[in-house]
Order: sequence, then structure tokens, then C-alpha cells
Amino acid sequence: MKIFDIPGFPNPLRIRIVLAEKNLASQIEFIKVDLPAAEHKQAAFLAINPTGTVPVLQLDDGTYISECTAITEYLDNLDGNPVLTGKSPKEKALVHMMQKRAESELIDAVGIYFHHATPGLGPALQAYKSPDWEGRREWGERSRDKAVAGMRYFDKVLTAQPYVAGESFSMADITVWAGLVFAGFANIRVPEECTALLNWRQTIDERSSVKNPA
Amino acid sequence: MKIFDIPGFPNPLRIRIVLAEKNLASQIEFIKVDLPAAEHKQAAFLAINPTGTVPVLQLDDGTYISECTAITEYLDNLDGNPVLTGKSPKEKALVHMMQKRAESELIDAVGIYFHHATPGLGPALQAYKSPDWEGRREWGERSRDKAVAGMRYFDKVLTAQPYVAGESFSMADITVWAGLVFAGFANIRVPEECTALLNWRQTIDERSSVKNPA
Repeated sequence: MKIFDIPGFPNPLRIRIVLAEKNLASQIEFIKVDLPAAEHKQAAFLAINPTGTVPVLQLDDGTYISECTAITEYLDNLDGNPVLTGKSPKEKALVHMMQKRAESELIDAVGIYFHHATPGLGPALQAYKSPDWEGRREWGERSRDKAVAGMRYFDKVLTAQPYVAGESFSMADITVWAGLVFAGFANIRVPEECTALLNWRQTIDERSSVKNPA
Repeated sequence: MKIFDIPGFPNPLRIRIVLAEKNLASQIEFIKVDLPAAEHKQAAFLAINPTGTVPVLQLDDGTYISECTAITEYLDNLDGNPVLTGKSPKEKALVHMMQKRAESELIDAVGIYFHHATPGLGPALQAYKSPDWEGRREWGERSRDKAVAGMRYFDKVLTAQPYVAGESFSMADITVWAGLVFAGFANIRVPEECTALLNWRQTIDERSSVKNPA
């Protein structure tokens, strides 16, 4: 299998942690996409992922799979032991609910702030990400506020349970963790009163797959 | 089980079609949420779904599940025969990839247009949906353009295969269909050259679960 991505970036990191969790790293050939040069917004890349995002997984039969949730579903189910996406109907539902919240309330909100209210990854990409319209900076700043509200929400969740979707580590933890990494990169600080979130972050930081992603 | 929703609205309709597909309608008690009065933005509702959206499924053990993808995962896996969310790793991946695209490129894009660039569901909800900032109308109009681009994308997909995620009907078809219903309600027309999308729409319109949702 091949993965088109760039090391160290938030969404690619999510899948590299999944690969480490599932011991699949050795089966992947990585192909670097030059995000600061906006390679993922050019025709050659859009032909493999029309939404212009990384990472993209290419299966051995040639099929392209994009979107982290979809890629994680694939990788997690390959061995018939889906530890990251849930086994029972209720587990699957809780993981997918929290995955969606981790995206909309945190990592995607940070991304909107980063790409629209700051210089982001520089001028080549900015031309695609943040066209010139009056409201874009305020939209980005509102999105930063949404991300901070998201942090407060996940802090509350993690006061009541050890992991984002309940009693076990799941893809939703990976997404919240990557969201906090991205927030740090974008200079959005976790409110210091969010102690449950900050303690959970320390636990996840020490996890083998997170210390040594693919 | 209980579902908190409002009949006829786009996202509630997605789950009511799932219920009809899975023959589960008789097991559900529906509880109406007054969206035009912004009931889903008040504390009582936010306690069951902090993101303030409908539908919400309540399991018999009291657990609340929100987000259509999560609710569909639950309902589709209850009988051990997940016909809407995929069985093999590859099917699951393709369904989730297209589900995400159906949301971000179509139904959610229509929603942003409807709630921010038009009067939406009226002043009570508008106060929550569209705060007074200069760029909101332009943001909404850009989102309408994104939805139309999404229609053109799904038209291309449906030129090559009978259903949104491949050879079989899936939750991604339900989401695109509901996205087109919402677009119609918001007066966003499908470009007439999107013949594959329009023909697919006619086929889905005739499907039993779509003609007779729960």
C-alpha cells in the first residue's frame, strides 16, 4: 500500500499513529506531497483526491481512499480486530460520534483559523486556502474561539471517562491529540483550567504509537 | 429507543430512511424538537447533544448518540448485517470516504448557505446560527457555490458507477439525496447538465425507504 502525505503534519500524523497501533508501518510506501508548495491543490493530486487533502491511502488494487476516518476504518478492520473504531454497534456509534466532534469542534476548527486568520503555510498555499474576502479573518478568529470551546468540551468529557469515546483508546483520541498538536503549532493555548484534558494529553504523549508513529 | 428530531428536515430524514431500510421504525419513539424555535440550542437539549444538532438517538440504556454517521453505524450493525456502512474493510472505507464528501461538499455546504446567506428557519434560530459579522453573507454564498461544485462532483462519480460509494446503495447515497432535498428547499438548483446525478435522483426517489421513511 502507498500513502501520500507529509511527515509531522496533523492529519498525516493521525494515520501514522494508526499504522503504529496496527503494526502496519512496514507494509506502507510513503510518497511525500509538498503542502507548502500547494502540490495537493494541483490537477495531478486532485485526480487521486478531489477534495485536495492529505493523507491519501492507495490500496494494492489501485483504489484511492482519502479522509482519515475512512482510512482508519480500512486499516483497523484489515486484521478483523477493530480496536480503534469499535466492535459492538454501541462502541462503533460512540467512536464515530466523538470522531466527528473531534474534527468539527477541534482539529478542523484549528485548521480554519490557521489557514484563514494567519499566514498559514505561506503564500503558495494561501492562494488556494484563503481567497480575498472581507470576512475571512473574522471567520478564522471565530473558528479559533470554537476550537477553544472544543477544548473545554473535551476537558469535560475526560473528567468523566479515561478516553474520548469511553473506557478504551480509539481513533477519536488520536484526532483530539492531533488537534492539540495542531493548536500548539497555531499558537492556540489549551486553557490551563482544562486539567483533565492536559493530564490525558500527557498520557497519550507517552503512548508507544504516539511516540513512534510510522 | 427514542429519536429526538423533526419530521421532513434533511438530517432527520437521513436517519428515518435508515430506519426504513433496516425495518426498525416500529422500535423507535419519536420526540419532536422545535427547530424554528431554536429548542436544540437551549440548555435542556445541549445536555443531550452538546453540538446542538438533530437527530439524536437515545438507546434503551440511556446513552445518547448524535451525528448521522454514528447513528447509522449503530442502527446498521444491530442485526449483524451492515448493508449501509460496508462489510469488508474496503467497502467500509469507500462508504465513509463518500459519506464525508457528501457532508462536506454538499449537505453541510447547503446548510451553511441556508443559515447564513438566507433568513433560514427564521429569527429565533438565526440568532444562534448567524451572528452579526460582516462576512457571513459572502461566506454563505461561497458555500452555495461549493454545494454546486459538489453536485458536479457527484454527477461525475455517478457517471462511472450506479451508487455514490460504488455498486451498492449505502449511507452515502442517503446523504447525497438528503443534500439535494435540502438544496431544493434552499433554492439551489442542480445544474441541468448533471444528467447522471439527476437520473440517480429519480432512481433513489422511487426507493421504498425514501418514499416511505419512518
